Amino acid sequence: MIKIGIVGGTGYTGVELLRILATHPQAQLTAITSRKEDGVPVAQMYPSLRGRVNLAFSSPEKANLKECDVVFFATPHGVAMAQAPELLEAGVKVIDLAADFRLQDLAQFEQWYGISHSCPELVPEAIYGLPELNREQIKHARLIANPGCYPTTIQLGYAPLLKANLIDASSLIADCKSGVSGAGRKAEIGILFSETNDSFKAYGVSGHRHSPETIAQLQRLTEQKVELVFTPHLVPMIRGMHSTLYAKLTQEISNEALQTLFENAYQDEPFIDVMPFGSHPETRSTRASNVLRLALHRPGNGKTLVILVVQDNLVKGASGQAIQCMNLMFGLDESIGLQHVPITP
Amino acid sequence: MIKIGIVGGTGYTGVELLRILATHPQAQLTAITSRKEDGVPVAQMYPSLRGRVNLAFSSPEKANLKECDVVFFATPHGVAMAQAPELLEAGVKVIDLAADFRLQDLAQFEQWYGISHSCPELVPEAIYGLPELNREQIKHARLIANPGCYPTTIQLGYAPLLKANLIDASSLIADCKSGVSGAGRKAEIGILFSETNDSFKAYGVSGHRHSPETIAQLQRLTEQKVELVFTPHLVPMIRGMHSTLYAKLTQEISNEALQTLFENAYQDEPFIDVMPFGSHPETRSTRASNVLRLALHRPGNGKTLVILVVQDNLVKGASGQAIQCMNLMFGLDESIGLQHVPITP
Amino acid sequence: MIKIGIVGGTGYTGVELLRILATHPQAQLTAITSRKEDGVPVAQMYPSLRGRVNLAFSSPEKANLKECDVVFFATPHGVAMAQAPELLEAGVKVIDLAADFRLQDLAQFEQWYGISHSCPELVPEAIYGLPELNREQIKHARLIANPGCYPTTIQLGYAPLLKANLIDASSLIADCKSGVSGAGRKAEIGILFSETNDSFKAYGVSGHRHSPETIAQLQRLTEQKVELVFTPHLVPMIRGMHSTLYAKLTQEISNEALQTLFENAYQDEPFIDVMPFGSHPETRSTRASNVLRLALHRPGNGKTLVILVVQDNLVKGASGQAIQCMNLMFGLDESIGLQHVPITP
Amino acid sequence: MIKIGIVGGTGYTGVELLRILATHPQAQLTAITSRKEDGVPVAQMYPSLRGRVNLAFSSPEKANLKECDVVFFATPHGVAMAQAPELLEAGVKVIDLAADFRLQDLAQFEQWYGISHSCPELVPEAIYGLPELNREQIKHARLIANPGCYPTTIQLGYAPLLKANLIDASSLIADCKSGVSGAGRKAEIGILFSETNDSFKAYGVSGHRHSPETIAQLQRLTEQKVELVFTPHLVPMIRGMHSTLYAKLTQEISNEALQTLFENAYQDEPFIDVMPFGSHPETRSTRASNVLRLALHRPGNGKTLVILVVQDNLVKGASGQAIQCMNLMFGLDESIGLQHVPITP
Repeated sequence: MIKIGIVGGTGYTGVELLRILATHPQAQLTAITSRKEDGVPVAQMYPSLRGRVNLAFSSPEKANLKECDVVFFATPHGVAMAQAPELLEAGVKVIDLAADFRLQDLAQFEQWYGISHSCPELVPEAIYGLPELNREQIKHARLIANPGCYPTTIQLGYAPLLKANLIDASSLIADCKSGVSGAGRKAEIGILFSETNDSFKAYGVSGHRHSPETIAQLQRLTEQKVELVFTPHLVPMIRGMHSTLYAKLTQEISNEALQTLFENAYQDEPFIDVMPFGSHPETRSTRASNVLRLALHRPGNGKTLVILVVQDNLVKGASGQAIQCMNLMFGLDESIGLQHVPITP
Repeated sequence: MIKIGIVGGTGYTGVELLRILATHPQAQLTAITSRKEDGVPVAQMYPSLRGRVNLAFSSPEKANLKECDVVFFATPHGVAMAQAPELLEAGVKVIDLAADFRLQDLAQFEQWYGISHSCPELVPEAIYGLPELNREQIKHARLIANPGCYPTTIQLGYAPLLKANLIDASSLIADCKSGVSGAGRKAEIGILFSETNDSFKAYGVSGHRHSPETIAQLQRLTEQKVELVFTPHLVPMIRGMHSTLYAKLTQEISNEALQTLFENAYQDEPFIDVMPFGSHPETRSTRASNVLRLALHRPGNGKTLVILVVQDNLVKGASGQAIQCMNLMFGLDESIGLQHVPITP
Repeated sequence: MIKIGIVGGTGYTGVELLRILATHPQAQLTAITSRKEDGVPVAQMYPSLRGRVNLAFSSPEKANLKECDVVFFATPHGVAMAQAPELLEAGVKVIDLAADFRLQDLAQFEQWYGISHSCPELVPEAIYGLPELNREQIKHARLIANPGCYPTTIQLGYAPLLKANLIDASSLIADCKSGVSGAGRKAEIGILFSETNDSFKAYGVSGHRHSPETIAQLQRLTEQKVELVFTPHLVPMIRGMHSTLYAKLTQEISNEALQTLFENAYQDEPFIDVMPFGSHPETRSTRASNVLRLALHRPGNGKTLVILVVQDNLVKGASGQAIQCMNLMFGLDESIGLQHVPITP
Repeated sequence: MIKIGIVGGTGYTGVELLRILATHPQAQLTAITSRKEDGVPVAQMYPSLRGRVNLAFSSPEKANLKECDVVFFATPHGVAMAQAPELLEAGVKVIDLAADFRLQDLAQFEQWYGISHSCPELVPEAIYGLPELNREQIKHARLIANPGCYPTTIQLGYAPLLKANLIDASSLIADCKSGVSGAGRKAEIGILFSETNDSFKAYGVSGHRHSPETIAQLQRLTEQKVELVFTPHLVPMIRGMHSTLYAKLTQEISNEALQTLFENAYQDEPFIDVMPFGSHPETRSTRASNVLRLALHRPGNGKTLVILVVQDNLVKGASGQAIQCMNLMFGLDESIGLQHVPITP
């Protein structure tokens, strides 16, 4: 059994870790920290866990995280980098669901997150936890930067095309839509029910933190210079993410060949579903599961390829992906504990 | 492995059976019928099942249901009673999720459902599949009438009080609220998104089919004459059911004693959660799981007791309960395959 | 033109006042105060008002509220009672949308609201602003206590029955459901989209502030002792309120006579719609309008009468009703500026 | 008073016409046809109109539409073209909310709508009813093709740029999102609440009927060859439309100049709101009103301009626009009867 610690379990990625780990056959939930909720049973805050998770939150001092095998940080930016060095030194593996270790370029990190990095020496060894692109490195990592939700969909949507050098990397457009849970569990007016329901809007159009992360990762896949216009939107739904990706084809290629390219690229992936050409994946077809589905379209058989990508932002876009990384890091079957069938309706 | 057949798998209780059975360790999905969708892979209609359920729908003629160990009817009223006799004769157990075998009083059945019963001889042996009240009979049944969603909550909420003869059985009021999936997957204007979202209404207030079923079952628990006012409402949510039950106490009794009564009544039940006195259970705390939660209130410490009951109408209110019965009928651990942690948020 | 001031215009009842008053032919929006938003144009906070309301928020000091003809308080409890005396002395009429003047019993006020009343001398002259029951007094009032949203529906639903002494006043049950906007525009976790959508729950079942207000008002209509069980619930919709009222009939009376009783009671009311017996009013049929609809049911033709009442909680349940009072106070046609047709779908 | 007839008043654009016309000071609702609902009062089908619209549906034979001054067709495609010739001959003006007269290219019409045009001789005189681009022609028209909802946003978003020849017309991308009411009031599984809520998807990505209409109209604004990738999506909300438009700038130009271009283009338009550069318009800021809001963004100050456009799909995207045309056709103030303040929250 893997002894597991969670720092910051009161947010949505935290409770999602708990939901999944509660039935993971190799996981032993050992400690969960929250200074503010010290002593409060987790199931009191989240009645959905009554009878399933018996832990109580404890303050960081009381929780002996160093006795864990792995610690997940489901925290705001800045927390993991403060605690990771000590844990790693004690032999504990660390998986950060926030952004502290996602950007290798520290100047960029500081520009977008507005804080200095407190352990820059660890950044180079951090592995970007996207198993479909970095599986071997993840297996041997002790420090994982779990990808952002948007970047997961954009990378997996563009990767086969960039690797095959079929598209113009300088004119990528990612028009992305996220459920409200992506904004976290924070007391903010902007994400109240009465502010977000029955409405739709874009946000961060002039610049969003997931842009530099995505561009840096996409750049690893091509020698062309990557330029990306990334437009996030807020959808009145709890979970779910839909990315509509536009790419200019630079070579003559048939739709069949494009479909085959994607099917081959992901044929052995347990969590990537390449749907038939021309399908319209719905976010609900991934709800509460770790699967990501995608489908290709070529409007008017023109030069623009449209890739539709859907996932559950809290699972494949966050906690499920983190546990997928954990499975790899501990030599387990990658799919163990992640076999939930999506909830429909 | 139990060989399983499903008649009418295109509706919501059908796809929910599939979702749950897809990961049930003792279930082998063998046949699923739909005349209209003959030959269509289940996963084409429900992309959420892609890679998880490989069956295709087949016409009733082609599907050899008699080779199954059990057949679930996730059909409109009237279908199960037409096919049950032949299946039972062939030694197949039958679980009907519709109402064909719920009412022992055939005149009542014909009054409320507007059709004659085609196999009245089977009605007496049909067992009402509410494990918490009829567990032993279910274990030995070959024909199960799976309870309606509303009746499940009302019975489990009132049962300890009626058995203990603490309330006036002639003034029961059940004010119940259901998510829209309870209306099924039918092409009807009234359950369109634009007709039901951001709105709330009652329906069937002057009379609803679940009334006679509920009253008949409640009557089994008390020697008083049961009278029930049952008011169903439609909530703009997909899944979830909340019953607010009112009962007049006829004896002096403390809140502690009432709480203890309920805790004792359900202490060994794997799927019933008696929350602390004064709690407000949310439907989402049961989402996509087989748990039913309830809590007691006594406004102003008066004579009226309020029992709040929540469940997922498609799981404990339908398909999960049916599988719970199946587990009992086949001598399995009652909880097997039903250990899903509710989805929050 | 009536010069109008609004204190606390940043919440939902505040912006709803602005929406309605923006097209009210006799209203001249003169001042709107918010200490925190001093100088911010109203339309910057509420883009829906761009081009329609040109005011900016100003701090209370700068806003010369004494020059207004009437001031609305769309504030939390406790604000109106602090400012009302000075305004009234200056000849300004005051309409409080909060609870400061709703309870004539000061001990009760202090018990439920946890604060002492700062101007108890004004309480006796405050008129409870429910025009259908208190029209004449409202016309001559200078201080209005605008009713709570729930109490409006409960009073208008029970009033004809209590006045005619047809029901048992000691066994009233009001099972009420409100959209989330009723909780206001506050940065609180509990009303986030991801906490409230696709879920349903009761709250305050053991005791809610609207109980004493409702009971005190109902008591004015009958010589029987009023006892009420009031159960509020939260519906995942923005606007709308549905009250399901239960009453025990104490006399033999036909359904036709009951229907006639209600039709006669409200025949001259511009905003009360008595629907045909057995109708199921939907909240959306009142969306964004000042109308309240109700319908009667008698399940199984028994002794229990069910009254279904719907309204928009922000209009007839708050700001629309306040403007209806204003119209009366200034000798205008009661309906002026309130003729919005409900938004469907 | 203008005598008004409506053909097909049972759908969402029909009831929206009724809602708006019920308070239009120059409109006299004269006839509304529905063969299926002959004799049924409109307010029985739409209780929101109780007390506000006293008409009943009548069969086309009984409704004397020729006595109207104008007839709106809120029907599926194919109805208006069958009835328009006779009405026009009788001197009745016709406004078609469907597509019968939107495409001047008949071959294109037949390809996309799958029916032959029954009155091709009228097509050349039909005026495309987008007042902001065709105001003068609308004033003198007797036959209006009311624009599609998506095309309205796309044209008004791109028009100033195309007219000024600032962008590459051959690489336009319109990523558009619509509320579910845009799919109409039809008994179809795909738009049930339980199929669409809490989910998001694209549809018609390989080809949608609004593409040829939009391209044909955009082509009128530029000498460049227009090529458009148009991707519609379905949002779990009732009303609202958000178009995210991408354009490649072909000239050096400052953001200030771009903003000025748009502000000048729409400065006299009563229903177009150019928001400050970098704003994020929400669909709810237009809910139930005829306003269309837009804002410009330039991510990373690069070559791609992003134009965000929002409207209520049933108002400016359909019925409101139709009434705006009617006002122009009858020499009225263009804004009359269309002054609704958007509903927030």
